[in-house]
Amino acid sequence: MKLVTYRASIEDAARLGVIVDDLVVDVAALGEAYGEDLPDSMLGLIDAGRPGLSALQACLDEADGDFPIHSATALANVRLLAPIPRPRKNIFGIGLNYLDHVLESAKALDTNKDLPKQPVIFSKPPTSVIGPDEPILHNSKITRQLDWEVELAVILGTRASRVSRETALKHVFGYSVMIDVSARDNRRAGQWIYSKGMDSYAPFGPVIVTADEIPDPQTLELWLTVNGVEKQRSNTAKMLFKVDELIADISQGITLEPGDIIASGTPEGVGAGRDPQEFMWPGDTVVAHVEGIGTLRHPVVNSTPNDQTGS
Amino acid sequence: MKLVTYRASIEDAARLGVIVDDLVVDVAALGEAYGEDLPDSMLGLIDAGRPGLSALQACLDEADGDFPIHSATALANVRLLAPIPRPRKNIFGIGLNYLDHVLESAKALDTNKDLPKQPVIFSKPPTSVIGPDEPILHNSKITRQLDWEVELAVILGTRASRVSRETALKHVFGYSVMIDVSARDNRRAGQWIYSKGMDSYAPFGPVIVTADEIPDPQTLELWLTVNGVEKQRSNTAKMLFKVDELIADISQGITLEPGDIIASGTPEGVGAGRDPQEFMWPGDTVVAHVEGIGTLRHPVVNSTPNDQTGS
Repeated sequence: MKLVTYRASIEDAARLGVIVDDLVVDVAALGEAYGEDLPDSMLGLIDAGRPGLSALQACLDEADGDFPIHSATALANVRLLAPIPRPRKNIFGIGLNYLDHVLESAKALDTNKDLPKQPVIFSKPPTSVIGPDEPILHNSKITRQLDWEVELAVILGTRASRVSRETALKHVFGYSVMIDVSARDNRRAGQWIYSKGMDSYAPFGPVIVTADEIPDPQTLELWLTVNGVEKQRSNTAKMLFKVDELIADISQGITLEPGDIIASGTPEGVGAGRDPQEFMWPGDTVVAHVEGIGTLRHPVVNSTPNDQTGS
Repeated sequence: MKLVTYRASIEDAARLGVIVDDLVVDVAALGEAYGEDLPDSMLGLIDAGRPGLSALQACLDEADGDFPIHSATALANVRLLAPIPRPRKNIFGIGLNYLDHVLESAKALDTNKDLPKQPVIFSKPPTSVIGPDEPILHNSKITRQLDWEVELAVILGTRASRVSRETALKHVFGYSVMIDVSARDNRRAGQWIYSKGMDSYAPFGPVIVTADEIPDPQTLELWLTVNGVEKQRSNTAKMLFKVDELIADISQGITLEPGDIIASGTPEGVGAGRDPQEFMWPGDTVVAHVEGIGTLRHPVVNSTPNDQTGS
């Protein structure tokens, strides 16, 4: 299933939807029509576990493409939000998780060229999340090195504490796309939360694809363009620490919970690693794609305080 | 006011209380007695803003020490939880924020001996929070360098985006104590979230003292003992970046929200900085105190998986 959080109109509250062909079917309304108590939010569905997904699937099967009135809207007519508009904790980010990105990072930034022996973890606050088409904010008083990173996002479905690599993927609810935006000139004593955690620095979506549709998350092409020019293209096969290793590793010390998000790292081709270096500026458009999931498209806009001229 | 989150008995749900002499007065029950709709949780009270605190104060004034039956319990008879048992996002931690700790850290760890030019920010997930008296978990498969750090914790009351140093303290709801527990041997590419973010690594409490009772947060003695031996003693006057600077700085890029927690850094005397180095082991007891707020006391217990012998 491809799941979305959406508004049918500007005034409407955020709703949970499932995409069927070119329709968004409202999950709670669908459930009501078939006498099932289905959740009205993505976190609600995640918390409902396997029974929740099964109940939703049963309703879809029963409808068989003929949806009750008012429960389906043309996808083109809704506004998609981030699939989880407000995560319950910071997003777990993974650094230096593709070989060629480790090399370009060591050349351009202050990281080591040796491959990390364990996953490199940082975090992005819930306030950094934006949904599809929302602007990435460029504050020229804070950064002149705003950079892109396309990533596969992993959404946890169940609590995971000290799990093995072998069982780790059973804890995954689904997958999505995240752009890990970074202000390269704002790393402090090497800590990345500020440089990667500012408002709007976590474009997220457009959908969550449930894990059953992506049995192997290590086979997905991913790419990113800026103003239509391809900057990154790779495959999740090239991750140094695979998704199951990331979950197993983090869970040895930090209990993972339903709704947790892991942005699994970016391949080579970031702006800081290019020669000459390139960064994002107001007026740019960045587009990011992960195979089988979807495409994010975001404008970069000026957000410099006390500066109406957009310098 | 000294505010707590507590359980009157093991079966009871967590409640919001205010300490009056040696009593915990249940805030929601007090409100009910006086016809005020007062919140039953700390985050509820924070979200209620100044009107919420004023309404609570009005009820306390009206009671004048003579509390309605069932609304007050002897402090000695309740179980205190972390004041915010489940923060809505990761705690903001501040590194290298006392001069002599910068120096000891540069000698013992991989940090720079130059003073940071901007606050060094990291994070601790909500799952790391424990309340008073709860055990700090020692997993000998992960760490043999479990360290202590006593810190003044700052709790935000109102949204703060791009605020000035001059107005920053107006956004503070109150202050508390946090121990920033660290597994020094688990820093990864210098990122601290894993080494400082594991389950039980954020002892927090025992109370939140509202900001009106601490007009100047830079005058507070703080100390920490391990097994009764003093390891840290300093004063928040010695912070490199004061509380108002931390709030103003973070808020330039990251919007701070009601209920956010900032652990403002630790003074010298951590285990890694001692000669010879000392760390915490199962059986140890760590006690941390900040003047005017209170004292945390935590046992360290073995939590090594597949190991019943407690080695």
